[in-house]
Amino acid sequence: MRRNGGQLAAVFSWEPFGKVSVMSESIHDDDPGFGVFHAGELQAHQRYGAARLTRGLAASVRDRLNPRLIAFLKVQPFFFIATANDRGDCDCSYRGRQHAPPNDPEPLLAVPDERTIVFPDYPGNNFFNSIGNLLTNPRIGMLFIDFASATRVRINGTARVIDEVGDYWQDWPSAARLIEVTVQQAYPNCRARIPHLAPAPR
Amino acid sequence: MRRNGGQLAAVFSWEPFGKVSVMSESIHDDDPGFGVFHAGELQAHQRYGAARLTRGLAASVRDRLNPRLIAFLKVQPFFFIATANDRGDCDCSYRGRQHAPPNDPEPLLAVPDERTIVFPDYPGNNFFNSIGNLLTNPRIGMLFIDFASATRVRINGTARVIDEVGDYWQDWPSAARLIEVTVQQAYPNCRARIPHLAPAPR
Repeated sequence: MRRNGGQLAAVFSWEPFGKVSVMSESIHDDDPGFGVFHAGELQAHQRYGAARLTRGLAASVRDRLNPRLIAFLKVQPFFFIATANDRGDCDCSYRGRQHAPPNDPEPLLAVPDERTIVFPDYPGNNFFNSIGNLLTNPRIGMLFIDFASATRVRINGTARVIDEVGDYWQDWPSAARLIEVTVQQAYPNCRARIPHLAPAPR
Repeated sequence: MRRNGGQLAAVFSWEPFGKVSVMSESIHDDDPGFGVFHAGELQAHQRYGAARLTRGLAASVRDRLNPRLIAFLKVQPFFFIATANDRGDCDCSYRGRQHAPPNDPEPLLAVPDERTIVFPDYPGNNFFNSIGNLLTNPRIGMLFIDFASATRVRINGTARVIDEVGDYWQDWPSAARLIEVTVQQAYPNCRARIPHLAPAPR
């Protein structure tokens, strides 16, 4: 599976999101992390006996969203984001759907294309931990976890804070601003240690 | 509330974790972020009209855990972590309790003292995203969210990967290694946009 100019290199089953075709251009044999893993991850692979898996793991990471994944994202009630400032200080934040008229609930996010996710930033606690981090370092890690089906997805990319809500006002009338993510990595996680939770009256 | 050598400066109600006393030594009036907020957050406070709140928000951030917060942490079934590598690439990861004999469930974490949280790292998908990040940058952001009570807590600090499980083997017989967090910031978040979820049979 050397790089050979965009021919089909492999087909992975990416449950629950269907089969995905890996084009050989996605596999970076000239990079020790195969275009996915950085030096710290490679160090961990070596240290914990996973180095022989590195290439296969890298090939399972997609650089865009597919239709079934987009459908999954759009019906989730919440997700989690990791951001860090330019000194590496990290923050983990919750993002949930707004329940308010006239759209109750409002959409969690929008997916204008297979490489782009937009979500609203609502007025909150005024800490601005996530936004403050993104103003100094645009990298973002997103985690979607569905406690009904024990499905877990990671999406990593670069985020831009947009101060004008513009046409998205109709979807998110109470949004203060938007965050637009350019997707660079998308991959599923296993179901381990996810309890089953279901909506219930409070 | 100038710094004056450790006298009581304020008492905040920190629901649901009781009242907390803020000692004046915790308030860094010589720092524009009052010992809590970094340049990006301060920029966001200015940009979005929250600058007059900065000092009060900073005073609500604790540098250690209190008994009611520790009790809350110990009964949670899961939490989320944000880590970043030394280039600022971020990852958001789920950490759940292990359900396996003889301890079913195993404890989510241990709190050896008011500044320290230890949690197990179980064998997983072999990506080593969190561990790989921590090997290059020890900063960590933790988010606890209880969907039963709509309680949300952020704990930020510095993490160390410990390859020997040692005496924690009795709590976490299947753990591969430990992560030990030195707590630097702990604060609650509001209940907004958290749906009520309850345990349910799968």
